[in-house]
Amino acid sequence: MEAKSNRSMYMKLLPVEDARALWFERLHDLRQSLPPESVPLKKALGRTAAEPIAALRSSPAFHGAAMDGIAVRAEATFQASPRRPLELAIDKDAFWINTGSPLPEGTNAVIIVEKLERREDKGVVVISNAAFPWQNVRKLGEDMVATEIILSPGTVIGPAEMGAMAAAGVMYPKVYKKPRVAILPTGSEIAPLDTVSETELASGTKIPEFNSLIFSAQIELAGGEAETLPIVPDDPNRIMEALEAAARANFDLIIVNAGSSAGNRDYTEDAVLALGEVFCHGIAVMPGKPTLLGRIDRLPVVGAPGYPVSANVAMQEFVLPWLCSLQSRTMEQGATVMASPCNPLPSKPGMEERVRVKLGLVNGRFRAVPLPRGAGVVSSLSRADGILSIPASSEGIDAGVDVPVRLLRPRRQIEDALLAVGSHDNALDLIDSFLRRRHPRFRLTSAHVGSLGGLISLAAGQSHLAGSHLLDEETGLYNRKAIAEKLAESPCVLVHLAQREQGFMVKPGNPLDIRGVEDLTREDLRFVNRQRGSGTRVLLDYQLKLAGINPSQIAGYQDEEFTHMAVAAAVLSGRADTGLGIRASANALGLTFIPLGPEEYDLVIPSQYMHDERILALMDVISSTDFRRAVDSMGGYGTEQTGQILWEFNG
Amino acid sequence: MEAKSNRSMYMKLLPVEDARALWFERLHDLRQSLPPESVPLKKALGRTAAEPIAALRSSPAFHGAAMDGIAVRAEATFQASPRRPLELAIDKDAFWINTGSPLPEGTNAVIIVEKLERREDKGVVVISNAAFPWQNVRKLGEDMVATEIILSPGTVIGPAEMGAMAAAGVMYPKVYKKPRVAILPTGSEIAPLDTVSETELASGTKIPEFNSLIFSAQIELAGGEAETLPIVPDDPNRIMEALEAAARANFDLIIVNAGSSAGNRDYTEDAVLALGEVFCHGIAVMPGKPTLLGRIDRLPVVGAPGYPVSANVAMQEFVLPWLCSLQSRTMEQGATVMASPCNPLPSKPGMEERVRVKLGLVNGRFRAVPLPRGAGVVSSLSRADGILSIPASSEGIDAGVDVPVRLLRPRRQIEDALLAVGSHDNALDLIDSFLRRRHPRFRLTSAHVGSLGGLISLAAGQSHLAGSHLLDEETGLYNRKAIAEKLAESPCVLVHLAQREQGFMVKPGNPLDIRGVEDLTREDLRFVNRQRGSGTRVLLDYQLKLAGINPSQIAGYQDEEFTHMAVAAAVLSGRADTGLGIRASANALGLTFIPLGPEEYDLVIPSQYMHDERILALMDVISSTDFRRAVDSMGGYGTEQTGQILWEFNG
Repeated sequence: MEAKSNRSMYMKLLPVEDARALWFERLHDLRQSLPPESVPLKKALGRTAAEPIAALRSSPAFHGAAMDGIAVRAEATFQASPRRPLELAIDKDAFWINTGSPLPEGTNAVIIVEKLERREDKGVVVISNAAFPWQNVRKLGEDMVATEIILSPGTVIGPAEMGAMAAAGVMYPKVYKKPRVAILPTGSEIAPLDTVSETELASGTKIPEFNSLIFSAQIELAGGEAETLPIVPDDPNRIMEALEAAARANFDLIIVNAGSSAGNRDYTEDAVLALGEVFCHGIAVMPGKPTLLGRIDRLPVVGAPGYPVSANVAMQEFVLPWLCSLQSRTMEQGATVMASPCNPLPSKPGMEERVRVKLGLVNGRFRAVPLPRGAGVVSSLSRADGILSIPASSEGIDAGVDVPVRLLRPRRQIEDALLAVGSHDNALDLIDSFLRRRHPRFRLTSAHVGSLGGLISLAAGQSHLAGSHLLDEETGLYNRKAIAEKLAESPCVLVHLAQREQGFMVKPGNPLDIRGVEDLTREDLRFVNRQRGSGTRVLLDYQLKLAGINPSQIAGYQDEEFTHMAVAAAVLSGRADTGLGIRASANALGLTFIPLGPEEYDLVIPSQYMHDERILALMDVISSTDFRRAVDSMGGYGTEQTGQILWEFNG
Repeated sequence: MEAKSNRSMYMKLLPVEDARALWFERLHDLRQSLPPESVPLKKALGRTAAEPIAALRSSPAFHGAAMDGIAVRAEATFQASPRRPLELAIDKDAFWINTGSPLPEGTNAVIIVEKLERREDKGVVVISNAAFPWQNVRKLGEDMVATEIILSPGTVIGPAEMGAMAAAGVMYPKVYKKPRVAILPTGSEIAPLDTVSETELASGTKIPEFNSLIFSAQIELAGGEAETLPIVPDDPNRIMEALEAAARANFDLIIVNAGSSAGNRDYTEDAVLALGEVFCHGIAVMPGKPTLLGRIDRLPVVGAPGYPVSANVAMQEFVLPWLCSLQSRTMEQGATVMASPCNPLPSKPGMEERVRVKLGLVNGRFRAVPLPRGAGVVSSLSRADGILSIPASSEGIDAGVDVPVRLLRPRRQIEDALLAVGSHDNALDLIDSFLRRRHPRFRLTSAHVGSLGGLISLAAGQSHLAGSHLLDEETGLYNRKAIAEKLAESPCVLVHLAQREQGFMVKPGNPLDIRGVEDLTREDLRFVNRQRGSGTRVLLDYQLKLAGINPSQIAGYQDEEFTHMAVAAAVLSGRADTGLGIRASANALGLTFIPLGPEEYDLVIPSQYMHDERILALMDVISSTDFRRAVDSMGGYGTEQTGQILWEFNG
């Protein structure tokens, strides 16, 4: 495998805003290119009005009763008063009428039944007050009048709009034809998602293609329809052929996926240049830098990077805004809130950087916990609550400074979430699952910084609770000493979540015959550690001390991972021979587990939140039998005391 | 038509919150009744995860290159330094590698191509810096580790969630079966929407049924699927039969529409009582009062009022929350902002009242203009930007007082809208249509209070602009004098929108031979007027004065309407013989128009907004040829000066 010598370098990097302005400018002649079509009203949900939609009839179509009662001519009641009640002859001066029925000829008011005295025997009703004209009457056209514009073009048709059109007699509204988008995945190693075997996946000989799935869903939600073309290998002629065919097929846009980085197999730029024009290749934003914008005849072309998080920028900034513009639609974007990151976020000046974050509203202030920044971390797309942007002019953002964050979920959902920052345990994810079922309004969002990091976050008011399993070597008790040290001024409550077993995870069958902490110094053995401040690290260091082992004797002691699962993955992949972690993680990846002993995993909750309805919901969940049962079923847990308050710390 | 004597009266009215608590409490045993089903990943968009969805594989599935370059064993590079560069033999110590490819056996770091010196002739590359382990490497499981929970139950599957599941190898996610809802329209006069002729519509002999269309769309958006049953007439036995059949058909909920008011043909309560139980009939909220909640065996029953705005409360407060709860979904609700109504909103104490409003962000403060409160005004559902709630404890809300308003659109959309309060003209609706096409971010929302009301609103800082056509009797000029009077301290700009023709609208063919203002005093003739403060009223009063006519001589002078179209509708329906209005309105309803003369219709815009990007977009629209052409085509307009600034008032 050798790199070509003529690697194409990016054209000058354009800031996102400039690139989008250029994109819209160069496509200006195509702005009104989407034709309208008529659809039956029943099929119009989610479609977009293509022209001003006017009422074809007036509603109501007649003067009708707005209440049950009698219809009268108001002028004939003017002399009625409490002192001089007036008799009205039924079916002559007064007519029984139901809500919604048309007023009889000659009447212009309705008197409600409660204000009548009924003398059925005499064939009359008696009123004690005059009616004024048009009282309790829904007048013709009160709702809408024929020819009035009821929907502007670009309106996305929802339930209310369907009702308005039905009332207006618009049975075949004109909506925009759905813009058609071709998705062209390229890459010799890329294969359709469902054709890649586990072996091919593990060896990397084939890479499953799933960006098209994400793109298609985004396009559908923006009112378009996507067609994924067959995957094209890294062959400039094949890419050109596919582009030419798409240009002939009247698509409204094509996305060429991958092949647009400056890597050694980037043929997209050459292909687009050969057939049309490239407006820009390279945007000053991370992730998303390798995006290409161009056009072949009447076909706009977006070269989207291969990594899903990078590709998302190409979608959000260029593909979706263009599709919305074609339909005169406003692109739906989350609100922006001010939030402060929990740790400093360094960034390279000259490039805007976008960091996905989890958010929590803690003590009236939004706190942001950054998710992994890798362009390939697709789970960061689904886990994120918001996107924090670090401007190109900046070298990064300090912890605790409020910066704008664009929300990816309704603000209310974020306000109703509990933010747990601290040690990770699978039981935390289960709490969220149970919350959603038992208290759908609430959720638990968690960020993993280890036990000590969690207590520091709590002390700084950056989170609602922390998972912690910090052993005090002197007392053998968990968490109490660390809480007293780190949360000196802040009363809090220690709630037991579970007992869990810690031990060494080793390859299936334990081929190296690892039996305990003493084996870690063996020369044939490579260890993988947890980060400083994690409870597991504290436990390891305690055990090493007991055994009189110096960390420098252990190969891999410096190699740190942030979660149990990451340690398990390192052992599974062969990167390390063993690491310390909980039984559940070993079980999860089919590793053998050498127990070291039980430990206590607790939740630390500031006392001030113990009456917060979100915490009450959490306490309800962890006290439930269903939850205990689910934790037990993961293996390696003890739940005898789950949900109990172990200790109250008064600061 | 006669009322039955045994009118059922409402049971004790429950506040909305209490009614919903009761509803959820009585349905508690059904909460987990929705079974899961597996769907192919490609069909999962918009579905709701039914259980915690765990990763079936780790991603990445191997250690791979995160950049293009060479893969090396980091430990073998430790001695490299700028002073002592190190040669690495290609395909022995260093391996060319592309982004995404798996690391060759024995390597654990990638050095990017830009940091290499290439000596292809010697078969080596030269490095001047050590690589550290795992640099530029995407580690196995970095994104997700097998068994990790990637989605909690209740998560609505969007594009990002589809990507996460694809990466996790979840090809058949378990989602909730869609809850099935039966809609049972009742009422002898009700007929399917597309079967009602214009004659039946105009005579009220048949009422088109379209609530089921609105309900179905709402149910679909909440993840359910609706089935509309055949319409059942007002016959207690037929309603019971339909309910029994639905209870047997395993629906998850039934909505009985109409027949639930306390009117004389309300059989729903009796039918539900005969087959099951009624939890509550009558909610202390307007509109929405006649809502009924009950249950037949395992079938929850909602009796929704017949009027669409009332029915909407039954949907939003009971049907949709229950459907969301069945799916562990959070019900999406708009944000709440503080907004102040432009006019006082009186309300009956003891009942919560919900008023739909248009909103504008004027000078940093949200202003609310109430829409018509009628329960039958279906257009108020689609026109509303938000819902203002007047608490049961209150007698109403004063103008200018900030109260909470729940948004029905994204906040951003409202912030980007121009709020026009003043005289109405169809050309205003056209401005909105053109804005959406040319500047999709912006919109124009308008409320109609007449010219003078508009200037007063502007002076109070309640709107961004006002349409106005106020004639000064002395100078013959429009708007200038009124502006100087009403906007004494506020500089503003007068922008011409159009010349338009005012005249008398009369029945087609002018059967009463109306020729001018002198005819209005005729005894055989009934007039319909515009409200005080409207430009049309000023014009009429001016003409009456010129002709020496006293308003008391005119039958119907006191009968006021708020828009040209409403006056036209009154003439069309026969409620009046003539009224003053613009030609476009007469044309719209096919009335004959007797011209009185041209008048000037202008926009009044405070100078401070003239550089606001929304106003710039509006100016761009009204200066365009397309816009003029569209106004001309309505008939009765002159557009020679459209878009010109006529006058600047410096306060």
